[in-house]
Amino acid sequence: MGPRAGDEERPTLEDVAAFAGVSRSTASRALNDDAYVSAAAREKVLSAARDLGYSPNQAARSLVTRRTGAVAVVLSEPESRLLDDPYRAAVMRAGYRELADVGRQMVLIFSDIREDLSRTVRFLEGGHVDGALVFAPHRADPLPKALRLLRIPVVFGGQAAGIRRGVHVVDFDNEGGARLAVQHLVAAGRRRIATIAGPQDQSAPIDRLAGWRKTLLDAGLDPADLAEEADFTLSGGANAMSALLARHPDIDAVFVASDMMAVGALRTLGGAGRRVPDDVAMVSFDDNVTLAPAMDPPLTSVHQDPREQVHAMVETLMRLLDDHNLKPRQHILPVSLAVRASS
Amino acid sequence: MGPRAGDEERPTLEDVAAFAGVSRSTASRALNDDAYVSAAAREKVLSAARDLGYSPNQAARSLVTRRTGAVAVVLSEPESRLLDDPYRAAVMRAGYRELADVGRQMVLIFSDIREDLSRTVRFLEGGHVDGALVFAPHRADPLPKALRLLRIPVVFGGQAAGIRRGVHVVDFDNEGGARLAVQHLVAAGRRRIATIAGPQDQSAPIDRLAGWRKTLLDAGLDPADLAEEADFTLSGGANAMSALLARHPDIDAVFVASDMMAVGALRTLGGAGRRVPDDVAMVSFDDNVTLAPAMDPPLTSVHQDPREQVHAMVETLMRLLDDHNLKPRQHILPVSLAVRASS
Repeated sequence: MGPRAGDEERPTLEDVAAFAGVSRSTASRALNDDAYVSAAAREKVLSAARDLGYSPNQAARSLVTRRTGAVAVVLSEPESRLLDDPYRAAVMRAGYRELADVGRQMVLIFSDIREDLSRTVRFLEGGHVDGALVFAPHRADPLPKALRLLRIPVVFGGQAAGIRRGVHVVDFDNEGGARLAVQHLVAAGRRRIATIAGPQDQSAPIDRLAGWRKTLLDAGLDPADLAEEADFTLSGGANAMSALLARHPDIDAVFVASDMMAVGALRTLGGAGRRVPDDVAMVSFDDNVTLAPAMDPPLTSVHQDPREQVHAMVETLMRLLDDHNLKPRQHILPVSLAVRASS
Repeated sequence: MGPRAGDEERPTLEDVAAFAGVSRSTASRALNDDAYVSAAAREKVLSAARDLGYSPNQAARSLVTRRTGAVAVVLSEPESRLLDDPYRAAVMRAGYRELADVGRQMVLIFSDIREDLSRTVRFLEGGHVDGALVFAPHRADPLPKALRLLRIPVVFGGQAAGIRRGVHVVDFDNEGGARLAVQHLVAAGRRRIATIAGPQDQSAPIDRLAGWRKTLLDAGLDPADLAEEADFTLSGGANAMSALLARHPDIDAVFVASDMMAVGALRTLGGAGRRVPDDVAMVSFDDNVTLAPAMDPPLTSVHQDPREQVHAMVETLMRLLDDHNLKPRQHILPVSLAVRASS
């Protein structure tokens, strides 16, 4: 598929002026909110711009837009984690596919160490890409704030560290997903529901932990001392499960904040002679296609689709390329529960 | 680490002129081989340029070089394969790390479908990157030929499809590696040595198959009908092993052209009740750290290190950025045999 057809026939300022029946300079002044334009002329120009689909910032941007045809996908995470994490691999694949579908070249950038920051920002502001899709899950990451100065549009996948307003975000309903998981376990009669939380320097695992805690309290159950933090890895999940079992041998369920950690937790439970789900029921998060259904027993998991997230991000970016002034919003994607034999 | 120190103090044309004691225009004409310069002046200018480390193409390039600080890593392969192949994941990681070490930002580009070609070339020639490291293993891939027109330096990882001369290539000694593997099996007394070859539309597996065949012939053994082609996947390796066993139940060894296919072949042998290495000895290729030593039994494998390849590619690229006229060469990296329990 080539560039979107619209790119070639975008209305120019001259088109707007001609359509409105005014001079080019009047049209320009009207669009720039200059005071020296009559109210009638302004109304005609704005109406013409609307009818033609002309956006005021388009001219300045079109040079860049036409030049590159490329969109950056920025993954700001330790490089060692990027290629082992099945979720990130799914994001890369989805980014490539979704951007190809709108005729754009994906340009993938890893930004790991502190020294990468200035290089990354310099590249992004150098006119080399039309826009950027940014995944920067760590709250202490300085990248999102540095990106606020860019002139190219940016859409974040997940919350942008340290920024609450004025950015475009596509995220999953992490807290809602945790609620689904824990409500499911409560409904099945479980009463000692522990959790293996993800790293608490990231928004998504923070929200999942909060959802677990609130749902237990709503059900009249006590969350005290039943949470263990781990690092999203298999061995981290295995160790956290050991720690929980040692502290509370009476645990009858566990909500694990990622499939990969759940695989580790399953091994620990197996090694400790606990049957899943008979002794301990398990619900995880991600519903990764190559992990959750392949486990023994297959994992009940909160379903989130990286491709759906990337699709929504690309859609937002494409709208931003047409209208730089699109109102920033938090687009929260719903999640669902894929129920399998582990619960 | 910042940009190399040399970037900031590069000699200018003015420096060369001053050093040679001629005017700027004389220096320029001398460097451009203009006829209207005396032999004496030309000699002084060229000598000054050499002493200062000034390269004639540098001025035209320096704009680009200074602007981006970025280097493209281009993976031209079906997207579905890129993220499942442990070798490609290792290449991505090595590319990021090695380029960060020389102060460059890796910009990763997947080029899969035919439609990507023009986008990829357009991006690479758009002044967005200083150079490119290109992996394009398929012989029918039109990308390498398209890249010959680029003004930025390109270094290929593995042979460049359809191009024999005039390109910079860093490759492993695939045929030599296959020889090591088969000589090892011959020395162990094996006489019916089959092979599971990789896709024969790619240079590396072609060379591995040739190495297997030649070594058998050199040892007075018959390769006829003992080769089966597969697609570098686990299931491909499993099926190829089944086919070989069905045709030749007396096989006592197999050389497999990748670790991933060897994992599949091991499963087939186990399912058929053949002990490894007692009944069938196995040697594979890649020596992937997470696969070969982790198998049961651990795999003897031809060791090649993606990071070493990428390191050599980055080194060549850095030299090309200093000297656009660096003589193209095929840099063939040696491989070794990691002997483990499977043989």
